Amino acid sequence: MKPIQVGLLGIGTVGSGVFNVLQRNQEEIRRRAGRGIEIAMVADLDVERARKVVGEGVQVVSDARAVIANPEIDIVIELIGGYGIAKALVLEAIAAGKHVVTANKALLAVHGTEIFAAASAKGVMVAFEAAVAGGIPIIKALREGLTANRIQWLAGIINGTTNFILSEMRDKGLDFAVVLKEAQRLGYAETDPTFDIEGVDAAHKATIMSAIAFGIPVQFDKAYVEGITQLSATDIKYAEQLGYRIKLLGITKRVDKGIELRVHPSLVPSKRLIANVEGAMNAVVVQGDAVGATLYYGKGAGSEPTASAVIADLVDITRLHTVDPLNRVPHLAFQPHTLDQAMSELPVLPMSEVVTSYYLRLRVADQAGVLAKVTGILAGAGISIDAVLQREADEVGGEGSTQTDLIILTHDTREGTMNDAIAQMQQLPTVLASITRIRKEELN
Amino acid sequence: MKPIQVGLLGIGTVGSGVFNVLQRNQEEIRRRAGRGIEIAMVADLDVERARKVVGEGVQVVSDARAVIANPEIDIVIELIGGYGIAKALVLEAIAAGKHVVTANKALLAVHGTEIFAAASAKGVMVAFEAAVAGGIPIIKALREGLTANRIQWLAGIINGTTNFILSEMRDKGLDFAVVLKEAQRLGYAETDPTFDIEGVDAAHKATIMSAIAFGIPVQFDKAYVEGITQLSATDIKYAEQLGYRIKLLGITKRVDKGIELRVHPSLVPSKRLIANVEGAMNAVVVQGDAVGATLYYGKGAGSEPTASAVIADLVDITRLHTVDPLNRVPHLAFQPHTLDQAMSELPVLPMSEVVTSYYLRLRVADQAGVLAKVTGILAGAGISIDAVLQREADEVGGEGSTQTDLIILTHDTREGTMNDAIAQMQQLPTVLASITRIRKEELN
Repeated sequence: MKPIQVGLLGIGTVGSGVFNVLQRNQEEIRRRAGRGIEIAMVADLDVERARKVVGEGVQVVSDARAVIANPEIDIVIELIGGYGIAKALVLEAIAAGKHVVTANKALLAVHGTEIFAAASAKGVMVAFEAAVAGGIPIIKALREGLTANRIQWLAGIINGTTNFILSEMRDKGLDFAVVLKEAQRLGYAETDPTFDIEGVDAAHKATIMSAIAFGIPVQFDKAYVEGITQLSATDIKYAEQLGYRIKLLGITKRVDKGIELRVHPSLVPSKRLIANVEGAMNAVVVQGDAVGATLYYGKGAGSEPTASAVIADLVDITRLHTVDPLNRVPHLAFQPHTLDQAMSELPVLPMSEVVTSYYLRLRVADQAGVLAKVTGILAGAGISIDAVLQREADEVGGEGSTQTDLIILTHDTREGTMNDAIAQMQQLPTVLASITRIRKEELN
Repeated sequence: MKPIQVGLLGIGTVGSGVFNVLQRNQEEIRRRAGRGIEIAMVADLDVERARKVVGEGVQVVSDARAVIANPEIDIVIELIGGYGIAKALVLEAIAAGKHVVTANKALLAVHGTEIFAAASAKGVMVAFEAAVAGGIPIIKALREGLTANRIQWLAGIINGTTNFILSEMRDKGLDFAVVLKEAQRLGYAETDPTFDIEGVDAAHKATIMSAIAFGIPVQFDKAYVEGITQLSATDIKYAEQLGYRIKLLGITKRVDKGIELRVHPSLVPSKRLIANVEGAMNAVVVQGDAVGATLYYGKGAGSEPTASAVIADLVDITRLHTVDPLNRVPHLAFQPHTLDQAMSELPVLPMSEVVTSYYLRLRVADQAGVLAKVTGILAGAGISIDAVLQREADEVGGEGSTQTDLIILTHDTREGTMNDAIAQMQQLPTVLASITRIRKEELN
C-alpha cells in the first residue's frame, strides 16, 4: 500500500525531529502501523534551511497553502505555533478534508472549540498528543487508558522551563532572577520567557487536560494563572524545612460546585514522587475513582521527545482515518454533543471559590503577642492551622535583629476566606512587609 | 444504539470490580465510548456469590460455555486465571467470534502466540491491558503512545507483593521470612506466594512487554527468573549505604546480539524515581530512542485498579470492533507476519550473555591480603571495580570478631565472566561463606 502522505508546516526544532525520527525508524514504524508514513511536502518560510533538513526528494515550498491544496496529502502537521496564521491554516486544512496533527497548545486551549467542531463537521481527526507534556503519552492515557474512571483531579509539572528554574533555586539557594538568566544562557528559557515563567504555557496545557478529564469544552479564559516570578529562595528553603518542595503545578479538580482550573506555585510533600521530578522533566498525576493515583513522567519538550508524540498521532491517524468518525476516539475524550450540558453542570469556579491549604510567611516584629494576634485573625476566619515555624530573629535578620519570619501552614480553606484573613493580618502594625502566600497541595 | 453486550467469566475480586465500576460510571463511560457497555451474563462456579454481586437483571450461570454460546454476547471477559480451563475458554470464545478481554498474564506469556494467531485468523480482538501492571495503561503506552520509538529497554516494578516485602524489609530492617508472614497476614501475599516471591508473575509480565517493545513473539520459556527469597536485610542496608535501593525488576533490553529478558533483584540508584516506588505500587520505565526515558506509575493490582484496565479494553473494543482488523492496533504492537523474522534476528539471550554490573558481598577473614586476592581475581577476569566497602570486623561480627564483610560494586561485565570469577573467589580459603551476588542497574 502507498505510504500515507504527510505535509509538514514549519520545520524548526520539532519539525526536524519529526522528519529525522520518521526516517531513522521508518522500518519499525511501518511494522507497527501496517503502512509507511512519508513526509511528502514541507512548507517553511526559510526554504533553504528546510531543504538542508529534508534533502532531495521532498518538495519544499514557502507557502503553507500549497501543502494544504495538494490533493495527495492525507495529513497536515502544524508546527508553526501561536494563534494567528496557525489557526487559519489548521481551519483551512480541515476544510480541505485533511487530518491535522498539531503541537500547538495555545491554539487549542483558546480556539479548540471552534477547531474541533470544524473537524467533527468535516469528519477529520485533529490529534494533539504533542501539545501537552511533550513525549509523555498523557493525552492517550487520559482519553483512552483511564476511560473507566470518573477523574477526580489531576496535577502536573507541565512546563520544563519553570521546573528547571525551581530545581536550580532549591539546589543552589539562588533567587529567581539569577537562575532565569542562567536558564536563558543554557537554552532552557527563551529570550522572552513570559509565557513560561508567568504560567501561561502551563495553563494552556492544564486547560486542554481539564476538558479531556471532565468532558467540558476548553475554557482557557476561566483558568487562574500565576507564575513563579515572585518566588524567593527563602520560601523554598522554609518549605523544605517543613517537608515540602515548591513546584509550579497545573491543577484541575472536580468538586461539588464545579471545576477548579488553576496554575500556580504549590507546596507538595517531599515524599510524593512528583515532588522529586527535577530539572526540565515533566510529570502528571491523575486521580481516578477506580484506578486511584497514576503518574506519567518524561521529557516535556525538545526536538525528538515532541516528535515522538507527533509521530504517535500520525500512526493513530494512519490506523483510524478509514474508520467511521463516530467510532473514533472523540477529540476531547467525550462525545462532542455532551460537552455543553456538562459545562453548565460543571462551571469553572472563580479562584475565590477554590478550597486548598496555604503556606504563609509573615515578616513580623520580634515582640510578644504577635503570634497571638495573627493566629487570632485566622481563628476568627475559621481557618485552622496545621503547623507554625517561628525563626529566631538573629537567624533571620542577623545579630540584634528586631524582625523575624513567621511561617504558618493552614488546613483547607476557601481562597476568598484566606484573602480576607490576609488583608486583616496585613493591617497589623507588627506585620512589617507584604505577606507571602503560596498554596499547598497534599496530592493524596 | 443497543449497549454492547459483555459476558463475564469468573466474578471474584477483579470481576466484582469490573461490574461495580461499570455500574457506577456507566453514564460517564457511555459519554466517552459513544455507546453503552453492559454486562449481560456472568458465569461463575459459585452462582450464589455471583448473584449477590450482580443482583437481578443479569443472567448468572455456572457454565462458562453457556456465555460463549450466547449469540447476543459481543465480548467475553476471562477472569478465571491460570493456563488450564482459561486457555480452552479463550480459544473457544475466539472460535465463536467473540472479542476477548483478559487479565491473564500467565496464559498470554506462555500461550500468547497460539491465542493471538487464532484471534487474527478469526478477525477478533484480544485485549489485555489488565495483564500487566494493573491499572497503569502501560500496554497502551508501549503499543500506541511510543510507536515512533525504537525501544531500547524497559525496567519495571511489576509485582506489588514483592515490592511491598522489599519496602518493609528496608523500612524495618527485617529479614524476608518475617516480612512475608506479615504480608500474608495483611493480604498483600497469597497463602501460596510462590509465583510472586520467586519472580514468576513478574516474568510473565516482562515477557509480554518484551514482545510488545521489540516486535517478537512471547517467549516466557527463555526468560531468566530469580525471586527475592534469598535477599537479606544486610544487603538492603549495605546497598543503601552505597546510594542504592534493591528492587525486584522485570527487565528487557535490546542489545547488539539480541534481547535480554530477565527478572531478578536489582540495585537501583536511590535518586532514580523508580527507586522511590514503595509498598505495593508498580512502575515501569521505558527508554525509547526519540522520547528518552518515560515512567508510568500506579496500582498494579486490586479490584478496581485492575477493573479500570479491563474496562478501558472494553471501551477500545466498543470503538474498534467494527473496524477492518488490518487497521486495528496489532495484538503485540507489530504486524503479526513480521514477528518470526524479528525473533530470528533478535534471539532472547541466555543469562550468561547478559551484560550488567554487580553488587558482591563476601564474608571474609579479617586479615591482610584478602582484598588483594579478591580484587586480583576480578582484575584477572577483566572486571573493573566501581566501589569497595569494607566493614570493620567489630561492626560486623561483634567485638573481637575475626570476620568481616567486603562489598564490591563492579562496572559492566558479562554474566558468564562474573560467574567464573565468583567461582574462583569462592575457592579462596579466606572467603568464609557463600558469596552474595545481586545485579545492579543504573537505568540511565
